Amino acid sequence: MWGGRFAEGPSAIMREINASIPFDKALWRQDIAASKAHVAMLGAQGIVSAPDAAIISDGLDRVAAEYEADGVPEDWDLEDIHMTTESRLAELIGPVAGRLHTARSRNDQVATDFKLWVREALDQVDAGLDLLQRALVTRASEHAASIMPGFTHLQTAQPVTLGHHMMAYYEMARRDRSRFADARVRMNESPLGAAALAGTGFPIDRNATATALGFDRPSNNSLDAVSDRDFALDYLMAAAQCSLHLSRLAEEFIIWASQPFGFVRLPDTLSTGSSIMPQKKNPDAAELVRGHAGRIIGCATSLMVTMKGLPLAYSKDMQDDKPPVFEAASLLALSIAAMTGMVTGTTFRTERMRQAAELGYATATDLADWLVTQADIPFRQAHHITGAAVKLAESKGAALDELSLEELQTIDSRIDGRVFAALSVEASVAARSSHGGTAPEQVRLRVAEARTALGMED
Amino acid sequence: MWGGRFAEGPSAIMREINASIPFDKALWRQDIAASKAHVAMLGAQGIVSAPDAAIISDGLDRVAAEYEADGVPEDWDLEDIHMTTESRLAELIGPVAGRLHTARSRNDQVATDFKLWVREALDQVDAGLDLLQRALVTRASEHAASIMPGFTHLQTAQPVTLGHHMMAYYEMARRDRSRFADARVRMNESPLGAAALAGTGFPIDRNATATALGFDRPSNNSLDAVSDRDFALDYLMAAAQCSLHLSRLAEEFIIWASQPFGFVRLPDTLSTGSSIMPQKKNPDAAELVRGHAGRIIGCATSLMVTMKGLPLAYSKDMQDDKPPVFEAASLLALSIAAMTGMVTGTTFRTERMRQAAELGYATATDLADWLVTQADIPFRQAHHITGAAVKLAESKGAALDELSLEELQTIDSRIDGRVFAALSVEASVAARSSHGGTAPEQVRLRVAEARTALGMED
Amino acid sequence: MWGGRFAEGPSAIMREINASIPFDKALWRQDIAASKAHVAMLGAQGIVSAPDAAIISDGLDRVAAEYEADGVPEDWDLEDIHMTTESRLAELIGPVAGRLHTARSRNDQVATDFKLWVREALDQVDAGLDLLQRALVTRASEHAASIMPGFTHLQTAQPVTLGHHMMAYYEMARRDRSRFADARVRMNESPLGAAALAGTGFPIDRNATATALGFDRPSNNSLDAVSDRDFALDYLMAAAQCSLHLSRLAEEFIIWASQPFGFVRLPDTLSTGSSIMPQKKNPDAAELVRGHAGRIIGCATSLMVTMKGLPLAYSKDMQDDKPPVFEAASLLALSIAAMTGMVTGTTFRTERMRQAAELGYATATDLADWLVTQADIPFRQAHHITGAAVKLAESKGAALDELSLEELQTIDSRIDGRVFAALSVEASVAARSSHGGTAPEQVRLRVAEARTALGMED
Amino acid sequence: MWGGRFAEGPSAIMREINASIPFDKALWRQDIAASKAHVAMLGAQGIVSAPDAAIISDGLDRVAAEYEADGVPEDWDLEDIHMTTESRLAELIGPVAGRLHTARSRNDQVATDFKLWVREALDQVDAGLDLLQRALVTRASEHAASIMPGFTHLQTAQPVTLGHHMMAYYEMARRDRSRFADARVRMNESPLGAAALAGTGFPIDRNATATALGFDRPSNNSLDAVSDRDFALDYLMAAAQCSLHLSRLAEEFIIWASQPFGFVRLPDTLSTGSSIMPQKKNPDAAELVRGHAGRIIGCATSLMVTMKGLPLAYSKDMQDDKPPVFEAASLLALSIAAMTGMVTGTTFRTERMRQAAELGYATATDLADWLVTQADIPFRQAHHITGAAVKLAESKGAALDELSLEELQTIDSRIDGRVFAALSVEASVAARSSHGGTAPEQVRLRVAEARTALGMED
Repeated sequence: MWGGRFAEGPSAIMREINASIPFDKALWRQDIAASKAHVAMLGAQGIVSAPDAAIISDGLDRVAAEYEADGVPEDWDLEDIHMTTESRLAELIGPVAGRLHTARSRNDQVATDFKLWVREALDQVDAGLDLLQRALVTRASEHAASIMPGFTHLQTAQPVTLGHHMMAYYEMARRDRSRFADARVRMNESPLGAAALAGTGFPIDRNATATALGFDRPSNNSLDAVSDRDFALDYLMAAAQCSLHLSRLAEEFIIWASQPFGFVRLPDTLSTGSSIMPQKKNPDAAELVRGHAGRIIGCATSLMVTMKGLPLAYSKDMQDDKPPVFEAASLLALSIAAMTGMVTGTTFRTERMRQAAELGYATATDLADWLVTQADIPFRQAHHITGAAVKLAESKGAALDELSLEELQTIDSRIDGRVFAALSVEASVAARSSHGGTAPEQVRLRVAEARTALGMED
Repeated sequence: MWGGRFAEGPSAIMREINASIPFDKALWRQDIAASKAHVAMLGAQGIVSAPDAAIISDGLDRVAAEYEADGVPEDWDLEDIHMTTESRLAELIGPVAGRLHTARSRNDQVATDFKLWVREALDQVDAGLDLLQRALVTRASEHAASIMPGFTHLQTAQPVTLGHHMMAYYEMARRDRSRFADARVRMNESPLGAAALAGTGFPIDRNATATALGFDRPSNNSLDAVSDRDFALDYLMAAAQCSLHLSRLAEEFIIWASQPFGFVRLPDTLSTGSSIMPQKKNPDAAELVRGHAGRIIGCATSLMVTMKGLPLAYSKDMQDDKPPVFEAASLLALSIAAMTGMVTGTTFRTERMRQAAELGYATATDLADWLVTQADIPFRQAHHITGAAVKLAESKGAALDELSLEELQTIDSRIDGRVFAALSVEASVAARSSHGGTAPEQVRLRVAEARTALGMED
Repeated sequence: MWGGRFAEGPSAIMREINASIPFDKALWRQDIAASKAHVAMLGAQGIVSAPDAAIISDGLDRVAAEYEADGVPEDWDLEDIHMTTESRLAELIGPVAGRLHTARSRNDQVATDFKLWVREALDQVDAGLDLLQRALVTRASEHAASIMPGFTHLQTAQPVTLGHHMMAYYEMARRDRSRFADARVRMNESPLGAAALAGTGFPIDRNATATALGFDRPSNNSLDAVSDRDFALDYLMAAAQCSLHLSRLAEEFIIWASQPFGFVRLPDTLSTGSSIMPQKKNPDAAELVRGHAGRIIGCATSLMVTMKGLPLAYSKDMQDDKPPVFEAASLLALSIAAMTGMVTGTTFRTERMRQAAELGYATATDLADWLVTQADIPFRQAHHITGAAVKLAESKGAALDELSLEELQTIDSRIDGRVFAALSVEASVAARSSHGGTAPEQVRLRVAEARTALGMED
Repeated sequence: MWGGRFAEGPSAIMREINASIPFDKALWRQDIAASKAHVAMLGAQGIVSAPDAAIISDGLDRVAAEYEADGVPEDWDLEDIHMTTESRLAELIGPVAGRLHTARSRNDQVATDFKLWVREALDQVDAGLDLLQRALVTRASEHAASIMPGFTHLQTAQPVTLGHHMMAYYEMARRDRSRFADARVRMNESPLGAAALAGTGFPIDRNATATALGFDRPSNNSLDAVSDRDFALDYLMAAAQCSLHLSRLAEEFIIWASQPFGFVRLPDTLSTGSSIMPQKKNPDAAELVRGHAGRIIGCATSLMVTMKGLPLAYSKDMQDDKPPVFEAASLLALSIAAMTGMVTGTTFRTERMRQAAELGYATATDLADWLVTQADIPFRQAHHITGAAVKLAESKGAALDELSLEELQTIDSRIDGRVFAALSVEASVAARSSHGGTAPEQVRLRVAEARTALGMED
């Protein structure tokens, strides 16, 4: 009846579906650290004798040393990292190992270990985003005055500066970091001591273990402590949003690297070539970052669905919390690093960018603005006059500033010679100096603020 | 070629796919407020004359009064709430209306309006969660010492108190409120003045409009300001997580209301009866709350997918930001209110709960803990002794505390008569008085802290 | 305690959360049809007298006529379309209306109505895709030999024909239609007669109602019949996949319409212009189609999450099945129509496309293939020789076929003069005449087959 | 600048992000099979000489034998399974290996390999569902007449038979199998020969390779062939729906195994015990199946998002197609096997089920039906009479059939003594003998049909 790999029947199935050691062995450092904090507290509180506590603590160090040297053994019969460690501890130090599990349960233990892991992932992504921001700021500084077409609907709309464009992603990364930081604050309560679900009658000191593990305080409700996976969801949600930002930047690099755009030369290290077309560079890294957004969103969806409608307290479904978090963390770290490399290593073909910005009558808005400010024409009417000018220029195959004053005055007599100063792409970007505008001076201000915020040296 | 409703061909399709007025008319208050702040600033800066600014501002008040009285007219040719309002303004005050749009664009306008709407939704959900927390705290206070079975894997594990169970949801709501509050802080930067994508050359005062609209500051990058929908995603992500918590509470009410459990009598107002089985009460409200979690997660997924891979700056795809946010906000408000009503109005059948807690040897852990603390037996060994005692009790059809001392001593001679004090459900919950444990005294402490945090009167 | 719109307290909440009439009134035609089939069967079986059955049937016609003329009244106290109709029927024909509900229940009634609605949606999307395919085939036929760059990684790779590119979407639409057709076959079993959950003791004839409503047979299990929403999920899944295809085509139109590409001029009817830049055409319709993929995927996610873990039989969560299906159906119909319009109305700038195909050494593969076939060089080695030729051409700023024979022979002496015939873009596409290849002759074959499959006249 | 694992900088990042060998080595059998089919065709067509083709084919066999014996080596510099195999082939047979890649490209190769893998996964899941159906049918046959409460809203509604309940899942599995079968038909077209994107000029025979690999025909469009991942999405969508069904069954087992229900004793092999509460059985396998639905839905979401908006033809994002499919396939196979084990091994406590069915006035509907059929009372009115009877019974703490005839006649004088025959749970289920109803006779009919369909011996 049981075909294939389940030929042994239900027990083989159970062994495979139940074992989390293939993935939760990633928690071994956290498991050792939490156990050491726990046993130190048990010793300090006299729940376990001081000598026993010391033996256990030393034993845990020996287990850790073995894991460090040889990896974590993957024995499915021991199910998870917690039993694997406890079993090895018992081999090393004998029955006293049995005292380690006093006043705790696998439920609070796994919540604690996993929180510690996620907390470290939050710190790592913050460090990665810091590097990405530095790369963006550095390129923005170089290109504060480099002109490129600003697009809406992927249509050339107005000239902008490349530095300004880079700094838009700095802002996204800033929000990402704030989101990860918020998640860190919110999650930093220790579940240890919640035991199976109800707390414990042993005279434990939850503040001591919380402090030892870098938590701000113990959690307030034992049922919640073992049932809660908000910290994992917070991580995944923030990762998903971050990956969306990266996917947008990746899309831009991919489009910019296409032959018709030709705005960039991608770094060799982050592209793949073709033996047959040596000049071709496929933007593989950017494409994979864009694709990874799909997988990270899938990870976030996964845990949301898993948690839906679970009654309190712990249910085994919650064992499915780790694979999506581990996967997302790995993909996100790689994606941030890849985009940092792209930002740093890409050659911007500023002359092509500038030429593209000059096409498409991108300074039409500047003409309209001139009409409003210099000729006091209502905005909507100024728009229509400008439209007529563009139409005329187009019919002549000319740029806006190649029309003669006479031609412009045919359209509206209030136009005078000062207008030409407004119609170059340089004038256009320089004019947009309102707070947060694309003018080089604004970009330089923002860059300076960002360098200060990032602690970048001058 | 064009069948059915598109018989008119592409222009009919375009009219329908492009019109956002059917849903974005919900933004009318925000659109009026933002326009008034904008024109006041234009007047103060001298970009528009003071009299013109006053006429426009009064005109906007008149439009608002019309909307308030008669609703927003839904003319698809005017596409959206912005054109609808501007068009009506022009009818009311003439061509001067055309000056309102000076130094802004639909791109920063829609970002501003939508942010204001989301900010209000954040405040409303916070108020809703405050009410839910009050309801939870009130019931927790009543039932600080009411005993029920604590479940893991939906199996009776240990006795807990109902008050403790209610307070677990208080903690979830606390994290939800913190998540919404974080989102509010992060999003509170004004896009107004970013214009189409590049900022503007008019001498606008972005701080003035930001302050007038309750923003903390203007946003720093115009490209980002019109391309960013993080605030909508933050709202949806937090809504999804909140809905997951509500779905868990809903699941519990549904299970508790089943005949075999019989833990609760649901409020008539939030159940539906059956004409044929008058004693039956279907937990419709709870089921709909559980179902709504699916829809809210769907809304979050929707906007994530829509935003993936969009190049800067504004793309029309982003018009699909509003329907999922509006839908999620409506479903979430209703879900929170429904669960508040359930928590407040449900009759807990505490005697049945207590009886259920006494079944299933739920105090076995207490016996094991007694062996550890009173007989200094290592935890893992104490577990095995307890297992033997439970097996014996089961074979006799007795509860643990119905075994005689002799019987218990057959299993382990270190057991003495003091053990019986540990084996009642009352003793079990009272003993779990570690921080965050289920003991009534702990529940009362947490309730008192929560009442203070919520500003509830004594 | 109950703020805002819930000032009346729980009953107001319940009224709002429970009422499905705001959306399920869309089912009115199906509800009338199913009721008529049911009462005809009740009459034929003698469960209801023939005169009573006739009165009820006529009454249902009168209700339908009212709905047709005035719309369905939305009275939340009547909850849903079923009660709304039954209540109106009772007003019109008196107590005999009460016999209509014999041997059925709201549970099988709603499943039947909704299935009928979805079945019609399946038929409509099939008709829409038929039109899209015709449009694609027509343009493919026009452009069977028009040359454009074929991209991988959005990098120019090899020349292809525009007709071939159009026919790729024909294939996707073919799979979409097959997916919708499969769903139709799978769902076409009648739930009517499953009653509440257990079937009925009345001597009903389920085959009769199944036949009357166009179902292939009655469903086999009453519990399944009222609990099943596979048909809605099948629809949503197929809609999601179809929307993904449309999003890819939309992305291409958006990129092609950008100034640097300039491959297309979009139809005015499906673009929006700018008053200020009359030459600019925003691809709004395409962007909205791309954005709608996000919403349709959100709809599919929504119902998956809602259905997860629901015990049998009917649960009220399942009332959340309709909004995502209705929303997806509307968005999908619009998306298909919009893309049909885009395909039909777009002007392809074939000269620019051809020029782009000539850049980027897109025929390098043809040189390599020539080396393999004409000079019997292993493929991988031929690649390296070609790479050297491209490098040489690039260093001279020349196209491949602008190199002299001498230059080519410097690289590999086995090259002879026949090679030049292989290096034009026309030769390149003509050569790729393997089944399904891009050669004009292949495209014409595929077009001919497609025209036959679609029943298009010659 | 590059911290942690990326200390080597961008090339280390690229190496890691680009390498698919860690997961696509799972395709090795398919890659060998497709290469063998390809080279056989090249030989037959004279594109490669017969001796060379034989050498290559033998070489591929040797590579396969090495993989079989020692596993696939994971060298990131070789990127993927295709280069790994080709590189090893070249080591074994020398430069002639370079002829294998003639007239194909990695793009059609990967599409072919992955399709073959998915096709096998489809076959495996079909075999797994066959076993699940057999288990369901077997238990349904045993329990065709075992009575349990039928629930709606998890409230006792009407008695049903356990066999009927099992057969509801048989129907779901039937639809699942049909969905996987449809996917198999739809996907069974060979991409091999599409080459990079445009087809090839070599005189290949795509029908030959298609036939050799078990495909029904070659695909019709080379651009589509290398860009299409519908087959992977079809698999994931069907897997998601199947997992939803399994999650519903899992939820039921979990609830049934709770102490208050006590409907089942779970098989030891698929539960975990507690050393401390030996009588407790945690339904871990069922919970993990329920949780896995979340992950499988996450996998489906992942690929949908990844594919959204990708322009033709191949983009590297599509490399992210495999991890979600591999993960879902593994989780689904395990979930089906686990639920098969649960269905087979669970002890149904039919006496407790029957008792639960007798509570809650579950035969009230039978009284109403009796009133309609025997006393010709309109259905809605019969409902109200029944409601009054239930209320009376409830007030007396009696079952419906414990009321006296006199008491019933007080409520409605048309009731006579024959009514009592309708009010037992046995009578209730026996009466529901309409097609697909819960009556034992109906269940036995359906079981017999299912046994025939499954080819089960008598």
